[in-house]
Amino acid sequence: MRLLFCGDVVGRSGRDAIAKYLPGLRRDLKLDFVVVNGENAASGFGITEKICKQFIESGADVVSGGNHSWDQRESLSFINNEARLLRPVNFPEGAPGRGAALYEAPGGRKVMVINAMGRVFMDPMDDPFAVIAKILERYRLGTGLSAVIVDFHGEATSEKMAMGHFLDGKVSLVVGTHTHVPTADHTILPGGTAYQSDVGMTGDFDSVIGMKKEVPIMRFTRKLPTERMSPATGEATLCALFVETDDKTGLALRVEPVRIGGRLSQSMPEVA
Amino acid sequence: MRLLFCGDVVGRSGRDAIAKYLPGLRRDLKLDFVVVNGENAASGFGITEKICKQFIESGADVVSGGNHSWDQRESLSFINNEARLLRPVNFPEGAPGRGAALYEAPGGRKVMVINAMGRVFMDPMDDPFAVIAKILERYRLGTGLSAVIVDFHGEATSEKMAMGHFLDGKVSLVVGTHTHVPTADHTILPGGTAYQSDVGMTGDFDSVIGMKKEVPIMRFTRKLPTERMSPATGEATLCALFVETDDKTGLALRVEPVRIGGRLSQSMPEVA
Amino acid sequence: MRLLFCGDVVGRSGRDAIAKYLPGLRRDLKLDFVVVNGENAASGFGITEKICKQFIESGADVVSGGNHSWDQRESLSFINNEARLLRPVNFPEGAPGRGAALYEAPGGRKVMVINAMGRVFMDPMDDPFAVIAKILERYRLGTGLSAVIVDFHGEATSEKMAMGHFLDGKVSLVVGTHTHVPTADHTILPGGTAYQSDVGMTGDFDSVIGMKKEVPIMRFTRKLPTERMSPATGEATLCALFVETDDKTGLALRVEPVRIGGRLSQSMPEVA
Amino acid sequence: MRLLFCGDVVGRSGRDAIAKYLPGLRRDLKLDFVVVNGENAASGFGITEKICKQFIESGADVVSGGNHSWDQRESLSFINNEARLLRPVNFPEGAPGRGAALYEAPGGRKVMVINAMGRVFMDPMDDPFAVIAKILERYRLGTGLSAVIVDFHGEATSEKMAMGHFLDGKVSLVVGTHTHVPTADHTILPGGTAYQSDVGMTGDFDSVIGMKKEVPIMRFTRKLPTERMSPATGEATLCALFVETDDKTGLALRVEPVRIGGRLSQSMPEVA
Ligand SMILES: [Fe+2]
Ligand SMILES: [Fe+2]
Ligand SMILES: [Fe+2]
Ligand SMILES: [Fe+2]
Ligand SMILES: [Fe+2]
Ligand SMILES: [Fe+2]
Ligand SMILES: [Fe+2]
Ligand SMILES: [Fe+2]
Repeated sequence: MRLLFCGDVVGRSGRDAIAKYLPGLRRDLKLDFVVVNGENAASGFGITEKICKQFIESGADVVSGGNHSWDQRESLSFINNEARLLRPVNFPEGAPGRGAALYEAPGGRKVMVINAMGRVFMDPMDDPFAVIAKILERYRLGTGLSAVIVDFHGEATSEKMAMGHFLDGKVSLVVGTHTHVPTADHTILPGGTAYQSDVGMTGDFDSVIGMKKEVPIMRFTRKLPTERMSPATGEATLCALFVETDDKTGLALRVEPVRIGGRLSQSMPEVA
Repeated sequence: MRLLFCGDVVGRSGRDAIAKYLPGLRRDLKLDFVVVNGENAASGFGITEKICKQFIESGADVVSGGNHSWDQRESLSFINNEARLLRPVNFPEGAPGRGAALYEAPGGRKVMVINAMGRVFMDPMDDPFAVIAKILERYRLGTGLSAVIVDFHGEATSEKMAMGHFLDGKVSLVVGTHTHVPTADHTILPGGTAYQSDVGMTGDFDSVIGMKKEVPIMRFTRKLPTERMSPATGEATLCALFVETDDKTGLALRVEPVRIGGRLSQSMPEVA
Repeated sequence: MRLLFCGDVVGRSGRDAIAKYLPGLRRDLKLDFVVVNGENAASGFGITEKICKQFIESGADVVSGGNHSWDQRESLSFINNEARLLRPVNFPEGAPGRGAALYEAPGGRKVMVINAMGRVFMDPMDDPFAVIAKILERYRLGTGLSAVIVDFHGEATSEKMAMGHFLDGKVSLVVGTHTHVPTADHTILPGGTAYQSDVGMTGDFDSVIGMKKEVPIMRFTRKLPTERMSPATGEATLCALFVETDDKTGLALRVEPVRIGGRLSQSMPEVA
Repeated sequence: MRLLFCGDVVGRSGRDAIAKYLPGLRRDLKLDFVVVNGENAASGFGITEKICKQFIESGADVVSGGNHSWDQRESLSFINNEARLLRPVNFPEGAPGRGAALYEAPGGRKVMVINAMGRVFMDPMDDPFAVIAKILERYRLGTGLSAVIVDFHGEATSEKMAMGHFLDGKVSLVVGTHTHVPTADHTILPGGTAYQSDVGMTGDFDSVIGMKKEVPIMRFTRKLPTERMSPATGEATLCALFVETDDKTGLALRVEPVRIGGRLSQSMPEVA
């Protein structure tokens, strides 16, 4: 199966990149399943129903979230009607929506997607290691389940690498989100799980993590209140990870970064 | 001028990579100046005088540090006699050693190296923005100063990107260290400063940030005391950043990642 | 029922105060049940089996813990054989020992003690609100259960006050530990639960939270490695909270601080 | 000299307590100098010019602040014209207003007030230990300076106790603010400095640190967005510290808590 995971889409610039490039990627890379992290899609803060639908129309099968999942109040309600939108699975019981679900890829193949949040340097949440382990007791690769994709939304590389190894051999992909900077450590772990510490944002990199740079610089240097931050408006780089998996084992055969447009070095897998 | 910055060397595996590859890199990339971050060189924790000398013998002009600078007690004293070893400049006044200094590259060219520590999700330190700005009041690129290299040792991508833009046009390179994972966002900022959020460690990537993975995974999942962490012993990937600068302006002409050996995708600049 | 809760005992000075004063308090205050937090009893770090037994001999019915519960390795094993020693209930599943248990007071009255850890500014743990709520579904005051005592080991006053109100009317006492400083906000909440944000340590207050002051001051001002911290050796103030409850409702009738010895202002309830 | 320090005034309930009790306290306790921390006076967030003037009319000589100093935008400008309003002294250079100043008490006696912010579990600021030490190089008790009052606005008891001992003998009073809960550890340190880890808020204690309790409890338990927090409206307890100093040495002779009104146990010094 061919999977693509697109990192945190930031604001209009990021959304434009998804609309512009994702349909072509879906075709050229012969993708079977696409996940887009949308926690910063609406002006940098959260996601609206309209934007979520746009991502799906552009080719996303699932839209995942993170600490910004609820920044737009409407997400608290429409997530209950939108099975393709996930929020972190380790929110307290009773949170709206779902954090993990089973989806169908072409040919009736089953794909599980899990969205979880790290706890190091982040808001206290239920233990992501325990929560994911519990899910995987019931869902095992290679038993009618073609792929498991884990979006691990976290800050610390230590926690992310630990999660990668913790799940190695049990899931198809552990990919980090949240830092908004792509890491160059995409790899297939010894047990067969594809891994990247952070896929990076889909946003304008002439910025501070996607936001216009003047305001955050002032915050760091002056420690005084500022106007609200807003997304940078230059051309975005679409940052994503391409993974090919073996449908029988569910494990990764190939992992390669995708970077299109904007200021970052470009990268595009070649698919026969 | 041709610069190379090598990220946090972790343990014996990382030191072996420096010894094996740095002399050849110095020659093949025709390097004029090399900085190695050595804060994790001694069993993952700090640096000894012996190891510092080995790095210099292998081709380092300067060895920088971070939050682990003092993990080996001997560093508190030998740093006073070793002008080539830096510790973060924003330690409280009276700390041993120095955090910024002027060095000489071939042809009598002057290179300033500044080592600073971020404050987001890290131990409280003096304001790195203010401290660096004050240094740069006296040291300006293009006035007899060929290059300024800033090793910004920090956790948060927001603080690192803000520092990059804050110094853009005033220094040759702002390169992040500390997360131990190389980022794929190497770029030349609009004002001419080369930038990378994190250069990544020189260590074994089949690990949790360079340490054998079993112990950190247990810490995350069980929250009980464990034995001490120790560096992973597999082959290291040397992670570095290659930068070419204009000696007149001190600004960057070219920036490219270096990754040799070990598990990460390989990258090597071509130098005519 | 008459309850006494003694705060974090720090080192020998704190242990001496328990040995010296607790037997008399037990008698003079006509106590039915005593809990002592012992997480710093062994040189400031953790607790040994020997010290735990001493507390019980001096009159403790239960010894509770906190983030330092495991600092002495032997506690990982002897806690399994010592039903009177608790560790925070919101450790990951599979942790040694127990975090909540039912005990017997004179006259066959049942007392539940719950030890839980806060998450604000502390190591990530399972959600203490959810974990305690789940326990209280099965254990309700006034149905054969005479008292429920919650030792909430936390840093932030906001989280502690929120826990107090969250449990108000459902438990006899929510008492904070961990900051090592007694608060003057002992009260009976509107629903009948006794509350104090922090009971304070039983230790020498001419110190930094019970430790000799020179080393911590150096850490704050110099940010360099120091020798290990060790408990201050001056006379301790025993800090405790005295609570009288109604055996039928399990709610509080009276709450008063106890402070004996050492440097703090003295306080002793009068019991007819 | 007789000093009174009133802790963080929260919202209307807290302001009413200041207006109601401070004039009488000024008279009955024969106060020479009064400081009120006003960082939460305006609906729990910051302070307005009007409120600041009300505090002064009620008997405050100085109004201090903290991390909430700038929550009301108007404070960024009117602080420049209001010498009696302080903000933390360890804000970055160039911040509006001042963090330490010399004031006059009856009889021409000089009183220095310093407002500083801690760094443990708080936003990164300049080193408060270093900043205060530098001020005290020029201002020494007993050389025409009758008293030095330090409002140390911080979270961690360790940092606060360390600051107390660090300044012991050099200032008249180190009093903590920010946690909104009064501590029962008021004391005169060995060197003669009066000390209390936290003076506590002047606000309604049937609350979560002064705010209506429902919203913060929901935040802790559900981790979902809520409406804005607003101050609790029950009767406030005025929490303050009374200190008598020797005008010659500037050191403390007597220290006693003040608690009037509301739910906390009442405390009132007797002054002949
Ligand atoms: Fe994001
Ligand atoms: Fe995020
Ligand atoms: Fe490092
Ligand atoms: Fe580091
Ligand atoms: Fe403790
Ligand atoms: Fe503790
Ligand atoms: Fe406050
Ligand atoms: Fe505050």
